Amino acid sequence: MLKELREKVLKANLELPKHHLVTFTWGNVSAIDRESGLVAIKPSGVEYDVMTAEDIVIVDLHGNRVWGTKKPSSDTATHLELYRQFPTIGGIVHTHSRHATIWAQAGEDLIAAGTTHADYFYGSIPCTRKMTPAEIQGEYELETGKVIVETFRERGIDPKDVPAVLVHSHGPFAWGTDADNAVHNAVVLEEIGYMNLFTRQLRPNLQSMQQELLDKHYLRKHGKNAYYGQ
Amino acid sequence: MLKELREKVLKANLELPKHHLVTFTWGNVSAIDRESGLVAIKPSGVEYDVMTAEDIVIVDLHGNRVWGTKKPSSDTATHLELYRQFPTIGGIVHTHSRHATIWAQAGEDLIAAGTTHADYFYGSIPCTRKMTPAEIQGEYELETGKVIVETFRERGIDPKDVPAVLVHSHGPFAWGTDADNAVHNAVVLEEIGYMNLFTRQLRPNLQSMQQELLDKHYLRKHGKNAYYGQ
Amino acid sequence: MLKELREKVLKANLELPKHHLVTFTWGNVSAIDRESGLVAIKPSGVEYDVMTAEDIVIVDLHGNRVWGTKKPSSDTATHLELYRQFPTIGGIVHTHSRHATIWAQAGEDLIAAGTTHADYFYGSIPCTRKMTPAEIQGEYELETGKVIVETFRERGIDPKDVPAVLVHSHGPFAWGTDADNAVHNAVVLEEIGYMNLFTRQLRPNLQSMQQELLDKHYLRKHGKNAYYGQ
Amino acid sequence: MLKELREKVLKANLELPKHHLVTFTWGNVSAIDRESGLVAIKPSGVEYDVMTAEDIVIVDLHGNRVWGTKKPSSDTATHLELYRQFPTIGGIVHTHSRHATIWAQAGEDLIAAGTTHADYFYGSIPCTRKMTPAEIQGEYELETGKVIVETFRERGIDPKDVPAVLVHSHGPFAWGTDADNAVHNAVVLEEIGYMNLFTRQLRPNLQSMQQELLDKHYLRKHGKNAYYGQ
Repeated sequence: MLKELREKVLKANLELPKHHLVTFTWGNVSAIDRESGLVAIKPSGVEYDVMTAEDIVIVDLHGNRVWGTKKPSSDTATHLELYRQFPTIGGIVHTHSRHATIWAQAGEDLIAAGTTHADYFYGSIPCTRKMTPAEIQGEYELETGKVIVETFRERGIDPKDVPAVLVHSHGPFAWGTDADNAVHNAVVLEEIGYMNLFTRQLRPNLQSMQQELLDKHYLRKHGKNAYYGQ
Repeated sequence: MLKELREKVLKANLELPKHHLVTFTWGNVSAIDRESGLVAIKPSGVEYDVMTAEDIVIVDLHGNRVWGTKKPSSDTATHLELYRQFPTIGGIVHTHSRHATIWAQAGEDLIAAGTTHADYFYGSIPCTRKMTPAEIQGEYELETGKVIVETFRERGIDPKDVPAVLVHSHGPFAWGTDADNAVHNAVVLEEIGYMNLFTRQLRPNLQSMQQELLDKHYLRKHGKNAYYGQ
Repeated sequence: MLKELREKVLKANLELPKHHLVTFTWGNVSAIDRESGLVAIKPSGVEYDVMTAEDIVIVDLHGNRVWGTKKPSSDTATHLELYRQFPTIGGIVHTHSRHATIWAQAGEDLIAAGTTHADYFYGSIPCTRKMTPAEIQGEYELETGKVIVETFRERGIDPKDVPAVLVHSHGPFAWGTDADNAVHNAVVLEEIGYMNLFTRQLRPNLQSMQQELLDKHYLRKHGKNAYYGQ
Repeated sequence: MLKELREKVLKANLELPKHHLVTFTWGNVSAIDRESGLVAIKPSGVEYDVMTAEDIVIVDLHGNRVWGTKKPSSDTATHLELYRQFPTIGGIVHTHSRHATIWAQAGEDLIAAGTTHADYFYGSIPCTRKMTPAEIQGEYELETGKVIVETFRERGIDPKDVPAVLVHSHGPFAWGTDADNAVHNAVVLEEIGYMNLFTRQLRPNLQSMQQELLDKHYLRKHGKNAYYGQ
C-alpha cells in the first residue's frame, strides 16, 4: 500500500542523520497522500540503519493504522493535527536538531536576520507558548499539534510562507510540499538557528532585517515572479 | 573468562570515538556481571584502534585483577565504588566529552531545560562538590566514587532516574543497565551539555522546564506506563 | 567554448561543499577570461553532485549568455559588476558560509585580530552599508555589486589587498586571481569569521592588531619582498 | 640523511590535518636529533597531500640547510631558538588551530580549569607579551622564539612541565619529547582552548583549579610516581 510514498518517507528519514539533524532515533518524517487522506510515517524507536520501507507505517487522518506491523512514531498525533489543519502541506519533519532546539528551549522566535532566512521563510519562525498542565497531562501529542496551529492562527501566519515552528521547551517541526521538501526546510531551519545564535551574541539587540530585503529574497524564490533556479 | 561481557565492553569502548566523546585514550567503559560480582573494564592508556577483547581486564569488586594481563583503567576504583553503592546499574562510562566537561569545569548542575533531557534524565544532572585536599591526596579514585555517591544520597536522587553525574573540575560519568546503555546515556549527556550551554547564552536566567512536561516525557519512555518504541 | 575555464570553475564550485562553505546549492563561483572578457559561472539552483562542466554558463560582461543551455546563477549581475570595476581580479565566490554570514548579519567589519588574517587580508574586511529600498526593488543583484564597489572606493581599499567583503544582512563575497584562489580566500574568511567571533567573546573591546605585525605578515606572503612558500 | 627522523617528521605533519589542527598548509612540525644537532622540518607552503619524506628539509641549529632541495618552513628560526634554549625538548609543532589561536588573539593565558589540562600541563599555558616594532621589523621569526623563551624564563616555567605557549596575536606552539609527542600536546592544547572558552562563558570569573587536584593529575601521569598507562 502506497509503496512509493513509503519509499519516499524512508528516504527522507534517512536524510536526517546525513544532515546531522538527529542523534539515535530522535526525529521522524511523514508524508501525506492527499487523495486518499493516508499518511506514511516512521515507526517508533527503530534505528535508522536497519529501517526499511516495510517498517514505515500507514495511518489514516484519525490515527488508525491501515498498513504495517510496527507502532507508528509516538509523535503521530502531532503530525496528523498539522495535516488536518494545514491543508497545503504534504510532508512533516520533527527533530531535536541542536540549534533549533536551543531556541525552542529559550522559548524565543527565530527572527529573520538575513537573506538565508528570507530565501525560505517569509518572516519570523514562531515559538509556541508553553503548554498548560491540562494539555500536557491530556492527549499530549495531539495538544502539541493544536498549540502549533493556534500559534499560526493567532499570529496570522500562513504555514506555506513559514514552513516551521519551534515548540516551547521541546524542539522544531518543519514541513513542506512533500517529505523531501520538509527535510530541506528542517536543514535550513537548523542553519538559521546556528547563525542567529551567534549574530545575537555580536548584536544583543538584534532586530529583524529590512522588510524590503525580506520581500525581495523570499519572492525571488517563491510565488509567481520567482526567478531562481532552472 | 566472561568473554561475552569483555566483547560487549570492548564494543562499547569503541563506540566512544565513533560518537566523538573521546580524544586519544581519554575515556573508559566497564560492565558488571552481577551474578559473579566481576567487572570487565578497559585497560589503562591503550589506543582504541589496537584494543581487542583480550585487552579488557576482569577485576572483582575489591579491585583484584582476576583475568587479563593489562593494568585496568586508572579510574577503576571509581567504577567499583559506583557498582558497590548503586546496585541497579550494569555499565559505567567515563569521558572528558567537551560540553559535559565544560559544565563540570564550571561546577554547575545541568538543569532539565527541554524534552531531550526529560526523555532520559528525570531532573537535574548534579555536579559534585569540590573534593577536599585529603580526598585528593588519599585514595583519589575511590574518593571520586564516594563523592559521587554522597551527591546522590544527599540530594535524594535515584541513580536509575538520573544516570549521570558531573565530577567538579573533572568531567562526566554516565551509567546504565549495561555498557551499551551507559554509552547511550553519555551521548545524550553531551548533547544536553551543548544545548544548555547556548540556551543559557540566550537566557541568562534559564530555569528548569515545567515539572508536568518533565514528568510526561520521562514517563512516556520509562516505567510501567511507557509507550515509546516498539 | 572556454572549456578549460569552465572546468576550473566547475572544480572550484565543487570545492565549496568540500570545505563546508555551502549547504545545498547556496554558493557560486565564477572566473573571467580577461582577454575575451567572458565569464564562466555556475548555473542557478543545480545540485553540486550532478553538476558537470557542460552546466557551467558563459556570459559576456553585459550579462548576455554566449554559451550553455542553463540559466546562470541569480547572482551573476553582482559578479559582473565586480569584474567590471575591479580589473585585477580573476575569480569570485559567493557563499552563505556560517561565520562570515554571522558578521554580515551583525553588519560589522571583520577587523584584523591576528596573523591568520594578516597572512591574507591587509586590513579589515569591510561590511557594506544596508541597501536602500530603491536599490533592493530595482536591479537588486547589480546594485549589490555597486554597493560593494562603493564600499571599497569610499574607504580607499584596494580589492587586491582585501579580497573579500561582507554584504549587510546577506553574506560574503570573496575573490582572487582566479577561481581557485577566490575559493582559498573564502575558506580563510570563514576561518577568521569563526576566530574573531570568539576572540571578541573573550575581549568585548577587541581592537585591531598592531600595524607592524599586520605589515610583517601580509608582506612576507605578498608583494615583491615575499619570502613564504617555495 | 636522517631518513628515519624525516619520516617521523613527515608522519607527524600529516597528523595535523587528521586532527583538524590546520587549514591548507598552516602548520609545521619539526624534530631534532640531539646527537648531531640537526633538525628535520616541514618545507614552506607545500600541500600536505603531496608531501613526502624527500620534501622534509634538514637544517643545523644555525639555520643552514644541510640536506634537501626545498626551502624550510618560514618559521624555522623560531623552532631553532626553542631547540637551542630548551634542551629537553625533541619536537615542535606550530599551528593556527582555532581555539588556541582565539586565546592567542585575546592575549590571554590558558589557565588550568580542569583535569584534562592537569593531565598534560602543569599550570597555566602562558601567552607571550606583544612583540615590539623593532622585534617585528628585525629578525621576526628568531625574535618570536626569543619572546617565547623570555616568557618561560621570567615566569619560571620549565618547558618540560608546560609544553606549549600562545604567541600574542598569532597562535600556538607546542612541543614534546619528539615530533609525535609534540603533536599530541598540540591536540590537547586545542581541546583545552575549546573547553576553557565556554567554561568562562558560564563562569566569567573563572579561576584556576585547586592546586592539589592539579598536582594529583599531573603527577599520576608524569614523573617518578606516575601510575597511568601500561
